Amino acid sequence: MKRSDRLVAMTNYLIEHPMELISLPFFSETYGAAKSSISEDLAIMNRIFQADGIGYLASISGAAGGVKYIPAMSSEHSNQFIEKLCNDLADPTRILPGGYLFMSDILGNPNIVRNIGRLFASKFANLEIDSIVTVATKGIPLAYAVASFLNVPVVIVRRDPKVTEGSTMSINYVSGSSKKIQTMVLSKRSLQPGENVCIVDDFMKAGGTINGMKSLLQEFNANVRAIGVLAEAEDEEEDRVVDDYVSLVQIKNVDDNNKQIEVTKGNYFY
Amino acid sequence: MKRSDRLVAMTNYLIEHPMELISLPFFSETYGAAKSSISEDLAIMNRIFQADGIGYLASISGAAGGVKYIPAMSSEHSNQFIEKLCNDLADPTRILPGGYLFMSDILGNPNIVRNIGRLFASKFANLEIDSIVTVATKGIPLAYAVASFLNVPVVIVRRDPKVTEGSTMSINYVSGSSKKIQTMVLSKRSLQPGENVCIVDDFMKAGGTINGMKSLLQEFNANVRAIGVLAEAEDEEEDRVVDDYVSLVQIKNVDDNNKQIEVTKGNYFY
Repeated sequence: MKRSDRLVAMTNYLIEHPMELISLPFFSETYGAAKSSISEDLAIMNRIFQADGIGYLASISGAAGGVKYIPAMSSEHSNQFIEKLCNDLADPTRILPGGYLFMSDILGNPNIVRNIGRLFASKFANLEIDSIVTVATKGIPLAYAVASFLNVPVVIVRRDPKVTEGSTMSINYVSGSSKKIQTMVLSKRSLQPGENVCIVDDFMKAGGTINGMKSLLQEFNANVRAIGVLAEAEDEEEDRVVDDYVSLVQIKNVDDNNKQIEVTKGNYFY
Repeated sequence: MKRSDRLVAMTNYLIEHPMELISLPFFSETYGAAKSSISEDLAIMNRIFQADGIGYLASISGAAGGVKYIPAMSSEHSNQFIEKLCNDLADPTRILPGGYLFMSDILGNPNIVRNIGRLFASKFANLEIDSIVTVATKGIPLAYAVASFLNVPVVIVRRDPKVTEGSTMSINYVSGSSKKIQTMVLSKRSLQPGENVCIVDDFMKAGGTINGMKSLLQEFNANVRAIGVLAEAEDEEEDRVVDDYVSLVQIKNVDDNNKQIEVTKGNYFY
């Protein structure tokens, strides 16, 4: 295969297999080229991936070595993306009765969701995450987006047990903001003991739901290595029950009466 | 930019922007190359995309013309993928009490989910779909996977209204298999009148849920152009209430007592 053909095929292959160690002999055999030519191809791809701000190729040397595509987002793109997100969310027509915010259109856009996934994946790429855990319903697309870049499975915690989940583990917890007792269940088959997990959700107020997930995950002997939320609500009056998290945006001063809202960058960039 | 660099950058750009018309001048300016060189690049990419079985580049001529990446999966890859899926699903340890099937691990694997999305997207690429509609919870990852390849938003029907949905339209419907009355709601802001939609779900038995979605979508004056389900259950005794759908696999003869199950290809290939 000619270099031009190989570059197209290998770029596609690497993008479709993020975080996966691929040996040079595999590329060499698949594309019928000498290892030295493959190394040159990889150098070109690494340079362009970095120039485009989509990540880089990590080389692992030795007999069991190879190359791994680590997805990332350049700080320039990250800043632009988050700023646009803040502007979109600050649209006062989003304010719902009770000071809630309509976000379903943003969570329904696969490009936005994919970029959110890329942002969290860049942040958590070195934590050796085994699974992404989220709670139904709105966190699900974000969890899959992160998972697709980290190349790990998604595990969905539910509010209600369903027959198709098989045996489940269940916990009761107290919601952080409403102080109501709620239930969460997780299928027994969904996690192996000792897995490193990353919790992903769309929104965090006091953090009761995420704290509930942490308790549930303790029952599975899972290690919560990271927590990522799209939006956190500033909530002065209450003590937040979760402190170690990464947020992309922070929602402040939702004023239902005057239809005003303030949205700023979250702690992602700190 | 040199050809080798352009090919890497343009391959990534096209894969990240499926179904989007991109003008030659855009590529020409972005990568600082003559239109004739860009045309040659596109010819190389088109050839390799087809050889790899991931789709093709459609050229639209004229002043408003350009190139569009149409994702697809070669029939060889499709067959291999579906056969593997049938084998995985036929594992008798999946059988749950009552003859249900555990599928959460398969739906939790982002690579499998992405391939399912690619399969449906290839089938529905010419239907001018505006939105993908699914119902919470298990259909959500599949809906996003299809949507990411067709480059359209996802709309999620819920069983229960939530304050963050704003005003909702609600219908009652009769479940096809249990004959129970159930409710579905959809946020009023989620669809524009006259949109072409594609319904995606994980599982269909008699089809009551999908029929309910069709009724709900009528209230939005949406045109249901396609229905895609991962698995359909063979169900001789009952009349199926939905007939125009595409399924990837068919689940037959789930025998809870003898722990046997038969899984065959769905109607996707007919």
